[in-house]
Amino acid sequence: MTAQQQFFIGIDGGGTKCKARLEDANGKVLAEAISGPANAARDLEGTLHSIYSACDALLSQRSDLTISYAQIHAGIGLAGVNIPHVKAQLLARKHPFASQVISTDLHIACLGAHNGADGAIIITGTGSSGASIVNDKCIEIGGHGFVVGDKGSGAWLGKMAVSHSLEALDGIIAPCVLSQTVLDTLECKTAYELVTMTLNAKPAFFAQLAPVVLNLATDKQPAAIAIVSEGATYISQLARCLMQQASSRLSIIGGISGLLIPWLDSDVQATLSEAKLSPEAGAILLAKTNLTQ
Amino acid sequence: MTAQQQFFIGIDGGGTKCKARLEDANGKVLAEAISGPANAARDLEGTLHSIYSACDALLSQRSDLTISYAQIHAGIGLAGVNIPHVKAQLLARKHPFASQVISTDLHIACLGAHNGADGAIIITGTGSSGASIVNDKCIEIGGHGFVVGDKGSGAWLGKMAVSHSLEALDGIIAPCVLSQTVLDTLECKTAYELVTMTLNAKPAFFAQLAPVVLNLATDKQPAAIAIVSEGATYISQLARCLMQQASSRLSIIGGISGLLIPWLDSDVQATLSEAKLSPEAGAILLAKTNLTQ
Repeated sequence: MTAQQQFFIGIDGGGTKCKARLEDANGKVLAEAISGPANAARDLEGTLHSIYSACDALLSQRSDLTISYAQIHAGIGLAGVNIPHVKAQLLARKHPFASQVISTDLHIACLGAHNGADGAIIITGTGSSGASIVNDKCIEIGGHGFVVGDKGSGAWLGKMAVSHSLEALDGIIAPCVLSQTVLDTLECKTAYELVTMTLNAKPAFFAQLAPVVLNLATDKQPAAIAIVSEGATYISQLARCLMQQASSRLSIIGGISGLLIPWLDSDVQATLSEAKLSPEAGAILLAKTNLTQ
Repeated sequence: MTAQQQFFIGIDGGGTKCKARLEDANGKVLAEAISGPANAARDLEGTLHSIYSACDALLSQRSDLTISYAQIHAGIGLAGVNIPHVKAQLLARKHPFASQVISTDLHIACLGAHNGADGAIIITGTGSSGASIVNDKCIEIGGHGFVVGDKGSGAWLGKMAVSHSLEALDGIIAPCVLSQTVLDTLECKTAYELVTMTLNAKPAFFAQLAPVVLNLATDKQPAAIAIVSEGATYISQLARCLMQQASSRLSIIGGISGLLIPWLDSDVQATLSEAKLSPEAGAILLAKTNLTQ
């Protein structure tokens, strides 16, 4: 197999979707695709299904090239793979690729953000977590779920907004624009209705409220500012912790990062750099490094 | 059936246990018993089992009196009965008593605390909630579960202590006596171990840490003081809200009330009165009121 016959797929698998890209050996992007959820800790079979659905979509987009799985080197970053037994279960499965390397979604995002060089990353989307790569070693912190962790994330902001709204419905605090907007968004009127909606609610349910909270904070609504400030304080602490490990570069990516960054401490904002490449591109870097090791 | 042949049972059913007492028509306590969990929203059949187990235990303690269920007027206060369809399901069941009245655990606790007179109550145990009775109408606020509500409760204090400990394990904040005591109490050493323990954990898991947090706050440990102060601020707000509804008397009961009261705002502490009777005794008051209506 010559270099020209080799192809690379990068996979970025998260709790809500799986993003994938196909490149040739020269780094030319041939196709991109999105499939379903790929949190390996939550649903291993579903994750494998999402991975291969995305790969099939890539190959069918470029059916003109008649690429086979045996020509593909895959770099795969997945949520949930930080849990050792989950990674072991994935590695135990047969795969159709010429080569495969599996790591966490944070690892590939960090590789992408700094084009393979040392650096740190924070992802603030539905959840929040950070990672730093120093001398090829990736250290991950944060996360832990919105009940006891994920502070400053979309799910955490939404959870805090729901708590605030329940206190307003109870008459413990005065109703305000935040509590009313939460109730309007969720189309409910009573504490009983709101609590019923939140029983067994997944992170994405709470995260749908994050733009409400962030936009009201931008509009200087006091209750929203209080919630966003508390979350941003944590993200600033997380950023400083990561920069102590990897003092080179720090990027913040993820669905709410754009609205959250203005609330971070000014010293943290000053250290931020744009991510150079996407997590999927970082996954391809990982696949290439794996080949040469 | 003469008055002398009548007996009263009061039931206080909560998420962890069901307390019951048997009185004669003159108000003399004949027996007391404790059985299993009785949260009607969480487990209706289990709740009915706990109620009748407790009643059987009362009657077997006083087998000398050969009391039958048909001689007993039952007052039953249960967690979860604030949910309308749960109460409807309970009322649809046949019961063996001469009469039966079902209400919430908060209602009977409030009746007991003020010996049937108007007043308000806060219960701070595994959860936190409050109720006021004004002109025989009971208004309940708070609760809502430790994820989005139950602020200042044992489960909430424990949840906050776990979050704090995870931040210390991540290196985001400095380890301290609180984080170390939490880890020692739960016998775990890593963020992964701690998160694994808290996945799907019930309120009682977190509430086991409440004495740790409260005792460290008493010992002036800064992180514990921060958590307890935030919880106590909410309970003080809850207290003021209830006193606006029922300006007569306010009592605070529940497993952590003794350790929490010193942290409440001084104006709230000054308004507190001792509960006159237990919730089970309040349930018997409810049964007697029901008979005369």
